[in-house]
Amino acid sequence: MQVEEKFPLPPGATIGILGGGQLGRMLASAAHKLGFKTHIFCPEEKCPAADNASHCTHAAYDDETALKEFLTAVDVVTFEFENIPLSAVEFIEATDRPLFPNAQILGISQDRLAEKRFLKDLEIATAAFMPVASEAALGMACEVTGLPAILKTRRFGYDGKGQSIIHDTDDIAKAYEDMAGASAIMEGFVAFDCEISVILVRALSGDIQYYPPARNIHQDGILRSSFVPAGLPADIESDAVKIAIKIAEESQYVGVLAVEFFVEKSGHLRVNEIAPRVHNSGHWTQEACIVSQFENHIRAITGWPLGDTKTHRPCEMENLIGDDVLRWPERAAESQCAITLYGKKQPRPGRKMGHITRLK
Amino acid sequence: MQVEEKFPLPPGATIGILGGGQLGRMLASAAHKLGFKTHIFCPEEKCPAADNASHCTHAAYDDETALKEFLTAVDVVTFEFENIPLSAVEFIEATDRPLFPNAQILGISQDRLAEKRFLKDLEIATAAFMPVASEAALGMACEVTGLPAILKTRRFGYDGKGQSIIHDTDDIAKAYEDMAGASAIMEGFVAFDCEISVILVRALSGDIQYYPPARNIHQDGILRSSFVPAGLPADIESDAVKIAIKIAEESQYVGVLAVEFFVEKSGHLRVNEIAPRVHNSGHWTQEACIVSQFENHIRAITGWPLGDTKTHRPCEMENLIGDDVLRWPERAAESQCAITLYGKKQPRPGRKMGHITRLK
Repeated sequence: MQVEEKFPLPPGATIGILGGGQLGRMLASAAHKLGFKTHIFCPEEKCPAADNASHCTHAAYDDETALKEFLTAVDVVTFEFENIPLSAVEFIEATDRPLFPNAQILGISQDRLAEKRFLKDLEIATAAFMPVASEAALGMACEVTGLPAILKTRRFGYDGKGQSIIHDTDDIAKAYEDMAGASAIMEGFVAFDCEISVILVRALSGDIQYYPPARNIHQDGILRSSFVPAGLPADIESDAVKIAIKIAEESQYVGVLAVEFFVEKSGHLRVNEIAPRVHNSGHWTQEACIVSQFENHIRAITGWPLGDTKTHRPCEMENLIGDDVLRWPERAAESQCAITLYGKKQPRPGRKMGHITRLK
Repeated sequence: MQVEEKFPLPPGATIGILGGGQLGRMLASAAHKLGFKTHIFCPEEKCPAADNASHCTHAAYDDETALKEFLTAVDVVTFEFENIPLSAVEFIEATDRPLFPNAQILGISQDRLAEKRFLKDLEIATAAFMPVASEAALGMACEVTGLPAILKTRRFGYDGKGQSIIHDTDDIAKAYEDMAGASAIMEGFVAFDCEISVILVRALSGDIQYYPPARNIHQDGILRSSFVPAGLPADIESDAVKIAIKIAEESQYVGVLAVEFFVEKSGHLRVNEIAPRVHNSGHWTQEACIVSQFENHIRAITGWPLGDTKTHRPCEMENLIGDDVLRWPERAAESQCAITLYGKKQPRPGRKMGHITRLK
């Protein structure tokens, strides 16, 4: 692949996006602002991004004929969530169609164990962890991580799904049963003071820009709100940024990368997880920055110069989850408040329906 | 039409937009942000808004069968430019499908003479004017308006097209010939100090919000750049806002309205023209405000509460006209600068290809 010849992609080129959820919808909108066309590849016909994509292919991710046809229609490929089957992304990477971020970092982020090992190799602190392949191994893992601990599936977990907290050894049998034979990892419980995330973007040229860290509040395993600035001592915030940069550089990353951290009372940082994509804790960049995380992702994967990541003012982002969305008329009426809705019809419990950003 | 029952339109409703240029593209993007779907009606298949609209109908504006089908698919109708044939808009208004702004104000804005008379009836100052139906009448009109004066077609003029400056009586014959028999209006030359515009939005409820006036620089009859704040004495700016509000209220306007003014050295204001739509001199609201003119237009026509019109910081908007767009890599690399490109392929001279907004 001779990336140099094709990049930067000129306005009018087509961005291929695997996945058609709200992140795909917002990425598509950012791409259109820069004069690009978009092509969404997503199995579900009524996905949020179908409302604004220039073109859609609705097919299974393992449909190689559909993937091949999709590739002939696009100039670069990216993905909007990390649970795209790795085989589809590897299939694309084996062609001459550029793919960002790369399949390797996607594979790492799909597997909690691979992710922890990758971070350990970079000497980046995480929770204590141990792979768990049997109920007996789970008993041993408890000794390594201490209790309480969290048993998580290695794959396909998001928004708190696929997780069991083990408070004492009596919980072990039930927790193991809940995994239903899925490969699992035991993670030590981190007594964190707060959670923060760093959203950075790395260009094809290697240039890196980052948004200020956000402080995140989770509820029932789902992000509830993010606050910027995070209000932590400057050295802690800059340590978090340095760790995120190290991850991006070591993985030859191109695009927006999100790194979530636990901050312990001592100020010690442990990486909770990495997401090789635009991230819910960066949605406030739409209103609080001149160039959002979505646009910067598009700029990065098309070889454009990165956009400015400074914030206009302090802000907070609040997710509209499930029935929260029914209060849109009140939220839309607030001053210095922006509302973004994802075009999803059914407000099921736990479903992310939209978000608001308040500038302060 | 029982507007009260249908409004506010809930997220998921479909906004019908007549016209598929860059204004339609940006309106569609704003509608998607609020969770709406969009349906563009535009004769040209490769129009800018075709890249991001949820649905498109490509048919002539006088194709009533196509219009009827379009109406069954949308919940409200608006238009993105004022040269939509009035008959099409009147056809829609006669159905039960709500249309904003109304056909009457569109008709007024399509005819420079009707517009001047409408403003005169409201006791709003304009340039001296006189209708011109013959070469002889043109001679008389020169006496009313004085020289220099500008002969303009009554209809379908934009970006300086369809205009001839008459410096002295020797220019009359040529100017009249240039009109090629089109209905014309003679306008006295206003020795203006500067040009400003007010972008306001009026809700279905009658609530009005306005953005601060912008100072506009034209070149060859085309808007080159806009600056905010306009830097005029507060009483002049507030007079301009009052005039714009009067126009909106008197016309029972719903949506975004743009009013362009000449400011004379004395501070006296004369309305140059009104545009019943989102306006080029308001593009900076995309980056300098939490809710842009595009989103506020969508909010107004769907019966939503209006969004905040305060500006984050002073800013300037610069159009990328014709080959200007080829300098996109430099513009994209500027800090505190946002670039918007319209997806047009050919950068012909005088063609608006995109714009940039710089926050200061």
